[in-house]
Amino acid sequence: MTVVLHAEPALEVAGVFFAALSGGLSAVRKHLDVFGVLVLAGTTGLGGGMLRDVLIGATPPVGITDPVLVATALLSGVAIWFFHPGIARMRRGVVVLDAGALGLFVIVGTTKGLQYDAGMLASVIVGTLTGIGGGVLRDVLTGEVPLVLQDRQLYAVPALLGAGATVLLWHEGWLAAWSATLVALGVIAFRLLSLWRGWVLPDAAQAAWPGPWNGGRRSR
Amino acid sequence: MTVVLHAEPALEVAGVFFAALSGGLSAVRKHLDVFGVLVLAGTTGLGGGMLRDVLIGATPPVGITDPVLVATALLSGVAIWFFHPGIARMRRGVVVLDAGALGLFVIVGTTKGLQYDAGMLASVIVGTLTGIGGGVLRDVLTGEVPLVLQDRQLYAVPALLGAGATVLLWHEGWLAAWSATLVALGVIAFRLLSLWRGWVLPDAAQAAWPGPWNGGRRSR
Amino acid sequence: MTVVLHAEPALEVAGVFFAALSGGLSAVRKHLDVFGVLVLAGTTGLGGGMLRDVLIGATPPVGITDPVLVATALLSGVAIWFFHPGIARMRRGVVVLDAGALGLFVIVGTTKGLQYDAGMLASVIVGTLTGIGGGVLRDVLTGEVPLVLQDRQLYAVPALLGAGATVLLWHEGWLAAWSATLVALGVIAFRLLSLWRGWVLPDAAQAAWPGPWNGGRRSR
Repeated sequence: MTVVLHAEPALEVAGVFFAALSGGLSAVRKHLDVFGVLVLAGTTGLGGGMLRDVLIGATPPVGITDPVLVATALLSGVAIWFFHPGIARMRRGVVVLDAGALGLFVIVGTTKGLQYDAGMLASVIVGTLTGIGGGVLRDVLTGEVPLVLQDRQLYAVPALLGAGATVLLWHEGWLAAWSATLVALGVIAFRLLSLWRGWVLPDAAQAAWPGPWNGGRRSR
Repeated sequence: MTVVLHAEPALEVAGVFFAALSGGLSAVRKHLDVFGVLVLAGTTGLGGGMLRDVLIGATPPVGITDPVLVATALLSGVAIWFFHPGIARMRRGVVVLDAGALGLFVIVGTTKGLQYDAGMLASVIVGTLTGIGGGVLRDVLTGEVPLVLQDRQLYAVPALLGAGATVLLWHEGWLAAWSATLVALGVIAFRLLSLWRGWVLPDAAQAAWPGPWNGGRRSR
Repeated sequence: MTVVLHAEPALEVAGVFFAALSGGLSAVRKHLDVFGVLVLAGTTGLGGGMLRDVLIGATPPVGITDPVLVATALLSGVAIWFFHPGIARMRRGVVVLDAGALGLFVIVGTTKGLQYDAGMLASVIVGTLTGIGGGVLRDVLTGEVPLVLQDRQLYAVPALLGAGATVLLWHEGWLAAWSATLVALGVIAFRLLSLWRGWVLPDAAQAAWPGPWNGGRRSR
């Protein structure tokens, strides 16, 4: 596990930077002021880890104690501030880089849950939350229903599978730098593949079993 | 107190299931996808207890560590997914069952606050929050002003009275399985009675003392 | 530091009262019921400190354990309930008193972060959050994008500078009742001066460097 953790810092910094971009862009779209852009970038880049740390009792969370992570998230906000028209035009690039952040955050988050003895179930949950929590906070702060709950994309699903795989590897004693890297790559590949192939989740209108309990028909 | 806690698990599971239904239904109404329905069910069923546990330092919260509770909340989401037209039509039944969850959550939450030495005031607050917090998170995540703050129904009031009664019983040394059960039944009865009789809270437009400080008149 | 803390209680109570007013007024404007008005007043007056305490692991937070603070926030809600037309007409007075609360909360919050060994960076962040967090929770609970992120006013900036100054004083060994008081007065003066002179932050539409990365033009 130590190996896993030693391999991470540089990548985690990159993950925070790319995740924070989407927060900054959302702030610009909502016409927030410069403080709002920096806060949104910071919250989106660091918020998933902060929710994780509060839930597992790892306080104060790294998202407010680690100068490198905080500076990285703010730098991302500054980049958005000055270059948002250019960055917004690179939408596809931002989505791809964000998939990288997702893969990374899930491994880091799940591993931290395990280290803090949160248990296997809680580690899967906080691992997933590390990946998706920043975006949820971003959307709540900008008055939107969180995208991850409604856009039907496969974003949380690869996160959940990656967190589950990490916990299984740990349980079998196979969690190491190389295996964690494979899981992260798997999360990223699944995410990108789903984007490329246009895979989506069903929404509730399509659900509803047309059985007698439902009056024999689909409806909403 | 031990007696109280030993009597609870099966009932708590039922409470989580019924509370989660309202989250799942809200998700369906907002056209969330399948992940959103499960998350909303989970957050609504388990969120009050999670807020309580974070506030009293009982981390990681049972809402992410207890497999039975988590599975129950997700099962509730699955039930909504398949049978939402039927369940939505049983609106009255859902409201009654949700009153049961309220009564239960308040006792469980207040007792847990006392066990963690949060003090009497904080135990009343986290007990109430255990009852109403899941619905608040549900509404925040779906972009609504929390119903419990605006619908004028007597929902938080019985929760608050029940939490206060539990703390008083504890202070007097009378908290036991039978007395806690009586309090829970009292909360449920008060809630259902208020629904049946149409009792409502005043809203702010009706408040405002028409004194000289207010210019001698009521407004808005 | 002990001196600083001994000087605070009466002022902190005043700060909570005035901060809570804006929450109660917001609740009235949103037509919440009486429970909603009290909860919004409580959340706005005590929420910044609660976020701070959860982040630094000082659980349960004083916002739910301290009877004087809780009673003060509720009293503020009661005042709004009865006198909201009059208080709303004193908008200017509320804004000035709220600046006082801001200055106070930042010093109290930053000092508490330092006391709990959260570190210098985290203490600046939780100090600022103590000042602005209540308003953020108020806006999230009423379905608004937080004012502090979008209204371009210098509200968070004096808070941030005050928190930074407090940490620097502490680092140099100069943090005492008199120096902390000076910082609080500086925060208040800066806030009021910015209101008086109409100083505002830029918003994102005005940012965007017109360089080649942005296509050579400003846009949104």
